Amino acid sequence: MSRREPLVLIVSGPSGSGKSTLVQKILELPGTMLAVSSTTRPPRKTESNGKWYNFISEAEFRTMIERGEFLEYAQVFGKNWYGTPRKALNEALEQKKDLVLEIDVQGALQVKEKMPGAVAVFVIPPSRQDLERRIRERGLDSEDEIRRRLDRARQEMLSYKSYDFAVVNDDLERAGLEVQAIALGSRCLVARTEENILEILKTFGG
Amino acid sequence: MSRREPLVLIVSGPSGSGKSTLVQKILELPGTMLAVSSTTRPPRKTESNGKWYNFISEAEFRTMIERGEFLEYAQVFGKNWYGTPRKALNEALEQKKDLVLEIDVQGALQVKEKMPGAVAVFVIPPSRQDLERRIRERGLDSEDEIRRRLDRARQEMLSYKSYDFAVVNDDLERAGLEVQAIALGSRCLVARTEENILEILKTFGG
Repeated sequence: MSRREPLVLIVSGPSGSGKSTLVQKILELPGTMLAVSSTTRPPRKTESNGKWYNFISEAEFRTMIERGEFLEYAQVFGKNWYGTPRKALNEALEQKKDLVLEIDVQGALQVKEKMPGAVAVFVIPPSRQDLERRIRERGLDSEDEIRRRLDRARQEMLSYKSYDFAVVNDDLERAGLEVQAIALGSRCLVARTEENILEILKTFGG
Repeated sequence: MSRREPLVLIVSGPSGSGKSTLVQKILELPGTMLAVSSTTRPPRKTESNGKWYNFISEAEFRTMIERGEFLEYAQVFGKNWYGTPRKALNEALEQKKDLVLEIDVQGALQVKEKMPGAVAVFVIPPSRQDLERRIRERGLDSEDEIRRRLDRARQEMLSYKSYDFAVVNDDLERAGLEVQAIALGSRCLVARTEENILEILKTFGG
């Protein structure tokens, strides 16, 4: 892995699994930054532009696709588009930070294929019942949407083998420590420390 | 990976790189235990039998080899024998703990070959000069031995690619946090959490 690629941490999982909260835990670590996604969905009341999402029009989104400006993108539930701009990689590299991607399962699989050195964490709800409760408590979805989200979650869970790590989100404190440990530990992956090792080897005369 | 195999954490690196101190850091984590090695070398003044090593005779060591009782073993500097008894795996499994192996580079490569699911951490001195200083400060070796240890360290450093993680031991606090993060994060490896994931999948009806 060359220095031209920052450490990319993918945090992914079914809608409602609690990805965002765990991403916030990782972002508490110094030396990490979030890849701000672009989306065509309208902002929720509490969301300001540019913090978690750049809210753009469908026309703008299509232009970015045509220009190859996305590392990954997907249309979710046949409706809104979400994508991670490629430029986030350069920003992380310039700032010498690890880049955290909070993306859905489709997007995670795309990034893993393009960047095999990316570290992918699957956030898993402890059960279907628990996931349903979380989605209902959020109060954003119709009955129809809730059913679709649960069906989709079941499908997505089957992709777990494409991930490096899985964190069951049943206890926020434990799960938070786990994702932080994964993030910190991944900095020590041999592929990421190779340049440093080779420098040290020089002091041994080869 | 089946439940019949505990999480095995190999901590390895050149003699004098500070493996033992980092192993102690890992052992501070609940749910971890050390695999006590058997060795034919005489105990140092501060060493009691059975804590870090079982001190045994060469005849006893040979019998254990013949009986296939070692997970790995090696003769170090053509002199003393060191080995990790296989029974440590069963003990860790019974106690539901992660098993930490503090072993030399030869042994680490043997274990990785037999147990590809083991997580191997390479402890690297920040430089040859630093390693030499540490070996001298320990005050256990003749000039001849110091030279041999440094030569051997250079050779061993070249094996870094066989490891999963590398930790440069230049700052004990940072390196300690790194090995702890690697240990905690490794519990979440997908291969290790698969049975749990499949249980959760059942609640989704498949």
